[in-house]
Amino acid sequence: MITTFPPLVERMKIEQFVAQSEGQWRSMRSGHSLAFQQFEDVLSEITIQAITGIHPDITKLLQSSFSETDISSTKVVAPFKMEWSAESDWEPDDPSEVSQGSCLILPIPDDEISGTLLRSVGYAESESAKSHYRFLNDGTFVLTTKYEQSIAEERIWFASENVRCRSSILRTSAGSGILQTSFASEVRRIQAP
Amino acid sequence: MITTFPPLVERMKIEQFVAQSEGQWRSMRSGHSLAFQQFEDVLSEITIQAITGIHPDITKLLQSSFSETDISSTKVVAPFKMEWSAESDWEPDDPSEVSQGSCLILPIPDDEISGTLLRSVGYAESESAKSHYRFLNDGTFVLTTKYEQSIAEERIWFASENVRCRSSILRTSAGSGILQTSFASEVRRIQAP
Repeated sequence: MITTFPPLVERMKIEQFVAQSEGQWRSMRSGHSLAFQQFEDVLSEITIQAITGIHPDITKLLQSSFSETDISSTKVVAPFKMEWSAESDWEPDDPSEVSQGSCLILPIPDDEISGTLLRSVGYAESESAKSHYRFLNDGTFVLTTKYEQSIAEERIWFASENVRCRSSILRTSAGSGILQTSFASEVRRIQAP
Repeated sequence: MITTFPPLVERMKIEQFVAQSEGQWRSMRSGHSLAFQQFEDVLSEITIQAITGIHPDITKLLQSSFSETDISSTKVVAPFKMEWSAESDWEPDDPSEVSQGSCLILPIPDDEISGTLLRSVGYAESESAKSHYRFLNDGTFVLTTKYEQSIAEERIWFASENVRCRSSILRTSAGSGILQTSFASEVRRIQAP
């Protein structure tokens, strides 16, 4: 038996997380605007797909995100692509009000439980984003992203193999004011055999 | 300097959590019914108040919850009372549709980060409940409650001193089916000086 340190199961946490997230998800998401006490409920489809092999977009995103020259694509673990298509309730009379997009996500582990995550499109602002991620001791994935005007904290955890929960808190980068929160319940679409 | 083991700051985690939760909160809560893909958005007021001294209700709840004779009120740490008053959106034409209630909550620590929590009224079913609680390594409070028909997992964490987040997952006790989830953003009501 070969012993590795850190143990393989620990070292591969981000890979396990991405593997568990792969697939097509039906998402119910509620946004809470705290100042105005407004709710926004959105149904959407999310597809998460692992990227295998060297993709030119990976090299491009790495180059645009780091001025250091020592970040090579070999440090990227379990890159994936996320696509979404959302239908907002803010325009109930206009069913064509569908926002959609996709982004490339590159995890770059520092150690077995934390690291950097690059996204070609950010969550709160539409620019590429460099985030810090870490796993809590129950496996919850916590992602912190500093944008120009705000800081977003996302948490993702699995309620079961096929149900994923995702919360977010958006705060002003200047102070401790919380602008909005959100919560999504994501149910895996099981493909017919 | 007196050294205690476990350190006082660790041993008092549940007390810190209750102290931080004390006060009056304005809650925005979204419920997600996963099978029917229905949203329920509710505004409510929550008041959390510490109980000091020996209260007759504490003795009564302890007696009804444990057949063992060795649980005395001296093992209870930071008992508190929670009152809520909710206005549901399911009856938009009837603003008198307000559900309210209150419950007594008794934490009984096993160690510095986990223990039992007794509630005079449960969360998912209206019976008294015995829950297990534990703190994750970032301070998130996780509460698991087994009811007759279901298992509820609640998570509570502080986004800031005055914003508290609370998520819940309700699953069938028979299997791994997730019935519903919810998320609440709670903002402390600051009293005028």
